[in-house]
Amino acid sequence: MEHTIALLGFGNVLRAFAELLEQKNPTLEQRYGYRLKVVGISTNSHGRAIDPAGIKLSQALELVRSGEGLDSLDAGWNIQSTPEFIQAVPAEVILEATWLDPTSGQPAIDFVRTALETGKHVVTANKGPVAFAYQSLRDLARQKDLGFLFESTVMDGMPLHSLAREGLLGLEISRIRGILNSTTNAILTRLEEGIAFEKAVAEMQEAGLAEADPSNDVDGWDSAVKIVVLANVFMGGDLRPSDVHREGIRDITLQDAKSALTNGERIKLVCEATQEGGHIHAQVRPLRLPLSDPLANTNYTVCAVSIDTDVLPQVSLIEGPSSPTTTAYGMLVDTLNVLRGRR
Amino acid sequence: MEHTIALLGFGNVLRAFAELLEQKNPTLEQRYGYRLKVVGISTNSHGRAIDPAGIKLSQALELVRSGEGLDSLDAGWNIQSTPEFIQAVPAEVILEATWLDPTSGQPAIDFVRTALETGKHVVTANKGPVAFAYQSLRDLARQKDLGFLFESTVMDGMPLHSLAREGLLGLEISRIRGILNSTTNAILTRLEEGIAFEKAVAEMQEAGLAEADPSNDVDGWDSAVKIVVLANVFMGGDLRPSDVHREGIRDITLQDAKSALTNGERIKLVCEATQEGGHIHAQVRPLRLPLSDPLANTNYTVCAVSIDTDVLPQVSLIEGPSSPTTTAYGMLVDTLNVLRGRR
Repeated sequence: MEHTIALLGFGNVLRAFAELLEQKNPTLEQRYGYRLKVVGISTNSHGRAIDPAGIKLSQALELVRSGEGLDSLDAGWNIQSTPEFIQAVPAEVILEATWLDPTSGQPAIDFVRTALETGKHVVTANKGPVAFAYQSLRDLARQKDLGFLFESTVMDGMPLHSLAREGLLGLEISRIRGILNSTTNAILTRLEEGIAFEKAVAEMQEAGLAEADPSNDVDGWDSAVKIVVLANVFMGGDLRPSDVHREGIRDITLQDAKSALTNGERIKLVCEATQEGGHIHAQVRPLRLPLSDPLANTNYTVCAVSIDTDVLPQVSLIEGPSSPTTTAYGMLVDTLNVLRGRR
Repeated sequence: MEHTIALLGFGNVLRAFAELLEQKNPTLEQRYGYRLKVVGISTNSHGRAIDPAGIKLSQALELVRSGEGLDSLDAGWNIQSTPEFIQAVPAEVILEATWLDPTSGQPAIDFVRTALETGKHVVTANKGPVAFAYQSLRDLARQKDLGFLFESTVMDGMPLHSLAREGLLGLEISRIRGILNSTTNAILTRLEEGIAFEKAVAEMQEAGLAEADPSNDVDGWDSAVKIVVLANVFMGGDLRPSDVHREGIRDITLQDAKSALTNGERIKLVCEATQEGGHIHAQVRPLRLPLSDPLANTNYTVCAVSIDTDVLPQVSLIEGPSSPTTTAYGMLVDTLNVLRGRR
């Protein structure tokens, strides 16, 4: 059966999604009976297009690659704003990956809310809506009998949220630990290899893995937002990123990294949420982990999560190399899962 | 809503299941609206009981603990055989964990088939039916619109099958690697600690982790059956355990284990299934893995699986300490999932 989707944003992740969808649509149809048709794309810098007959993704990709806007693909809808697009686009599912203010989660939260209010399922790769407004968006989705999924918010599309949703039923989760920020993990790996902090940061900036101001990564902000996502979704918490006790990696020296290795340990920026007696506490800080810890063997950009529960003592999920395509994949799986009624 | 289940077997795993269910039923009802009622238990050595009003699990556990049969709990059904029990018991789901012949998967395969043919969902912890008859049982379940789930066949109830079922949609799996046998992994860990092979085997036998004849573990039979389960379910294969190229760990010496460690490697009994051009090849053999491999840091009885796909380069799942309760948990999750229509 054909299902309609719309893309909010058309940056690295949703462009990778468009390529992945072109590649995977025949498989999805053959295995699951779903064919996904993109009927709208809304961007800030490349214009907007709606076409209920379906937008040719190869054309859209070619247009943005050559610096042109998407308006030539529009079938006469002339939409002027993102909220207007969300309301008007005749799509069952909205895939959201727009720019957001990391301190408030806006305007992505409003976009998600508008989509749900107009009867559309939402799949987002943005941590903001989940870190700042999870409970209210989840409740709104339930009330409207719609899906609101966000696999790609943590660990780039690795099946972490689906694992918890389908495979950890009825458990009490006492602790979640994670190496959730690729950039700091790669910097710490480089420290172990004898590369100084400033040089390692510069490398990450060159590789496009760190911003000009690397604070979001090295001071633990990104990690804090991600552990809040996991605490709120997996533990039923209602934390905000500012509730996280946060310590970054600026003070870690080459010597620290080497002395840890000599002791059979590795320094990692560990995100942790613990639950005890209904109280949830979250923190981000550099810790020395023994090599036997499943989180210790995560080199460079590899992320990992370890979940302790009352029945399964420890469930650890470890990523391979990530890319915009792995993040895009999480959005594709989420889309299939909302359409299949996994909410 | 109340749902009825029946237990085939009442050994370590299903006794742990009974205890877990007593503990978790209130949570399941509160979170998911399901309450599970055991209406029948069938054993070879402790008799059988059917009671549509519900069997008191604490009583059943007490009876078998004190060496008595379950017949006193029977509400006048007087069932004389397992097939007769499967047909007669008024349960929606049959949980199967009976003894089986590891070379044929029988009689468990017939039990599963009978249950499906009489309109009952099946949850099994037995590898046999999946290793020897997966495709035909899966097809029968589909044809009858019934669930046939088996989370506990590999990695003791860790959410591996549910992860693949819900989180790896549309992927091509090129390789699955696993450390899937606890006993050999613990023996290899002991070798690294300087304990000789025969002594390590004796320790496992004392701890109840290895049989008097340890061949099923140390010669790789158990591992072979498990990699066949994963190859058949995840890759769409139709292998049998005899198709697996199999090499055990009897020839690994203390010196081998130590020299690997000196090289920054560890010897592991690695199960592997690879898929290339529609052909699936499976093998079990001791390999030296670098410590950076997510499978390398699995000490003692910890199992792990690593899946390579065309989109997510590597997805690794690592277990914590296992027990009959972790296996029982997989059966509980499967039961909820078949009732929720996750098939």
